[in-house]
Amino acid sequence: MAASMIAPLAPVQLLERSRRGEPIDAASVAAFVRGWLDGTVTDAQMGAWCMAACLAGLASEAVGALTEVMVTSGDRLDLSRLGPTGDAHSTGGVGDTTTLVAMPLAAALGVRVAKMSGRGLAHTGGTVDKLESIPGFLTDLPLDRFVRQVRDVGIAVIGQTARMTPADKRLYALRDQTGTVPSTGLIAASIMSKKIAGGAGAIALDVKAGSGAFFPDAAAAREAAAVMAGLAVPWGRKVRWMVTAMDQPIGRYAGNALEVRGAGEVLRGEGAPDLRELSLRVAAELAEAAAVEEPGKGRAAAEAALASGAALLAAERWAEAQGGDPRAWTEPGVLAEAPLRLPVPAPADGHLAALDALAVGEAARWLGAGRLHAAQAIDPSVGVVMLAKVGDAVTRGQPVVEIHARDAFLADRAVEMIAAGIRVETGPAAAPELILDEG
Amino acid sequence: MAASMIAPLAPVQLLERSRRGEPIDAASVAAFVRGWLDGTVTDAQMGAWCMAACLAGLASEAVGALTEVMVTSGDRLDLSRLGPTGDAHSTGGVGDTTTLVAMPLAAALGVRVAKMSGRGLAHTGGTVDKLESIPGFLTDLPLDRFVRQVRDVGIAVIGQTARMTPADKRLYALRDQTGTVPSTGLIAASIMSKKIAGGAGAIALDVKAGSGAFFPDAAAAREAAAVMAGLAVPWGRKVRWMVTAMDQPIGRYAGNALEVRGAGEVLRGEGAPDLRELSLRVAAELAEAAAVEEPGKGRAAAEAALASGAALLAAERWAEAQGGDPRAWTEPGVLAEAPLRLPVPAPADGHLAALDALAVGEAARWLGAGRLHAAQAIDPSVGVVMLAKVGDAVTRGQPVVEIHARDAFLADRAVEMIAAGIRVETGPAAAPELILDEG
Repeated sequence: MAASMIAPLAPVQLLERSRRGEPIDAASVAAFVRGWLDGTVTDAQMGAWCMAACLAGLASEAVGALTEVMVTSGDRLDLSRLGPTGDAHSTGGVGDTTTLVAMPLAAALGVRVAKMSGRGLAHTGGTVDKLESIPGFLTDLPLDRFVRQVRDVGIAVIGQTARMTPADKRLYALRDQTGTVPSTGLIAASIMSKKIAGGAGAIALDVKAGSGAFFPDAAAAREAAAVMAGLAVPWGRKVRWMVTAMDQPIGRYAGNALEVRGAGEVLRGEGAPDLRELSLRVAAELAEAAAVEEPGKGRAAAEAALASGAALLAAERWAEAQGGDPRAWTEPGVLAEAPLRLPVPAPADGHLAALDALAVGEAARWLGAGRLHAAQAIDPSVGVVMLAKVGDAVTRGQPVVEIHARDAFLADRAVEMIAAGIRVETGPAAAPELILDEG
Repeated sequence: MAASMIAPLAPVQLLERSRRGEPIDAASVAAFVRGWLDGTVTDAQMGAWCMAACLAGLASEAVGALTEVMVTSGDRLDLSRLGPTGDAHSTGGVGDTTTLVAMPLAAALGVRVAKMSGRGLAHTGGTVDKLESIPGFLTDLPLDRFVRQVRDVGIAVIGQTARMTPADKRLYALRDQTGTVPSTGLIAASIMSKKIAGGAGAIALDVKAGSGAFFPDAAAAREAAAVMAGLAVPWGRKVRWMVTAMDQPIGRYAGNALEVRGAGEVLRGEGAPDLRELSLRVAAELAEAAAVEEPGKGRAAAEAALASGAALLAAERWAEAQGGDPRAWTEPGVLAEAPLRLPVPAPADGHLAALDALAVGEAARWLGAGRLHAAQAIDPSVGVVMLAKVGDAVTRGQPVVEIHARDAFLADRAVEMIAAGIRVETGPAAAPELILDEG
């Protein structure tokens, strides 16, 4: 970040170097992106740059410079007087309710949780949509109230605001229209600019890999995780990351109210083992990164906070503070329920070898748990219940999945979508790995 | 070109497929490019597409569709009632005066030459700039007068008009600003759309390869030549192509009036052997492609037309028809001459192993023979005279090159630029190949 005596590259020079995959100094990237925000660099040039980023890659210096421009393009929160603060991000999965468990758990350990979340994208669920399925829960608090709640309640989770990282929002819209979303560097800069502007001192990243994830394999996810972690260093933030499997849905539920129910089960000491495991890991990492627990002690502390009911209490205080019904975690009857239930049966005897996360996510979206177009309203009640997990023994005709739907026509199609993602095999069964890597 | 029953891809789908290097149907490419001309596809999307074309390539179907949209975006000439018509294109070189010899030579053989030419680009000369160094020569004839001259005089060469292939002009401006010029598919579509709209039935392409050319090696040039030839097929045009060496300048001169002088030398039966050879080849190919000569007979006919003075007579009639001084080919004194002469000496005894075309081209441009920025005026008199060619024996201090300049300061720097491109070696000398491939 030293000041450079050399004039930044002209836009066309920067584009030619980007096309050839050559490294570009930080000052030139910053000038290019600022020029685009100012209108001196054209949309055509930015579109070409994003495509070059996808195809020829971006060096870490360029990603760092882009991140800095986006962080400084709008409001930033200063949480430094609140003590140890923490935030977490998942790159998006199916049935991934980890945030709803890990955040109150981290709060119970003494991390002040200050998190801004997104809505569901494509077939993946979004934390804001899930929280809004809790009756009364508000996710659009003003920033001053958000900061007060972090200080007074120890946890607050709201939706992203237009006043923070507006450059990221504008760039994302351009990437979306130009088919240039899948660049590791552009993704890393987008995620980390929001985390850095959000102000938390410790950040836990859960980067998903597999059929239902943005990254197809662990190697791509690991690379992205390492880039994201590196971006936080100049800003003095502590980052821990995990690469986790997203070939089958996490936990037992996919859908908004259903996932709140699944989170409540884990907070009450029950629930799906994989969701419990992921939540404990994220909370433990965050507690250690925020230095409220010593290295190596986070896991035991998190287990204790779950067992003692401290995490559930934190979740109840959190819901209440944001206007939501605190019974959401303990009395699923207060949540919306869909009128129809349809089973998806196992096609043969054997063990469940695949329950494709993408198929389940697309089916949940089709049923109304997600959006097929941006303006669409969510139906909080609908979704998919996993009655078996990969590795479980099944007999022919046994329901593997139960669909919760509002409409029989939509339900029939969802059954077909999920059935195509189910594979039953004979021979030795193996439960898949959940945590693929960490750092 | 069959009508498709399938709806064209949406722009973002087309961009995603382009990013992955997947083939795209012609109708979708046509809809995308037309959408950009209409304003429904954004500049950001077109910039991203051009970058993807550079990095992931364009399949021939896509290049064909792009060419068709550009051809039909403006006026087209119908020369079908004029008999056998011909046009030629060189991808640009240094000292490449072939057009000024080959076109009147083809006209002398009975081809009606109808050519639209460009101005100099970067370090390469342009036919329009060269012709304008002939006193009085007009290159901006209206299209109806151009067609009449082709019919009545048998040859006309003018500059490109804004009314033909306006889409190409607009796309070129976007490529220029986005650093996406070097895509073989986009280059081929740009060149061939202009040739097809220009209306000639036979087209000779001279694709240059080497240090002073756009294409670095013969393989890249051959690929481009094959793509260009393929684009002409659906339009019923006959194409012959050559890949020729551009490591040293062609002929003895680089610079506008100097190159007219070099063309005149060849037209009078003297002149540089390489320029003579290239000109004979281009004229022979064109005569055979236009079917005014039988296959295999073009070369002998072209040699005869040069020897008899028929080609020189055609050149004189041509210059006169366009308002130019017909003595330009025979009396170099009517052309502009620069006041200063500076030699660039051989640095050692041996043979000339390299006289870098790019260095000579850049030096000529620096002296004022080309443009450093778009609005700059050309100085017709300045340039570089090659006193030796690669393979010639030289002694230390012997002038290899003579610089013709208007200004001593500019001349000194041009000497340095060229000296850096001269290499003298001992050991066996080999004259380089001129024609690398043809089809």
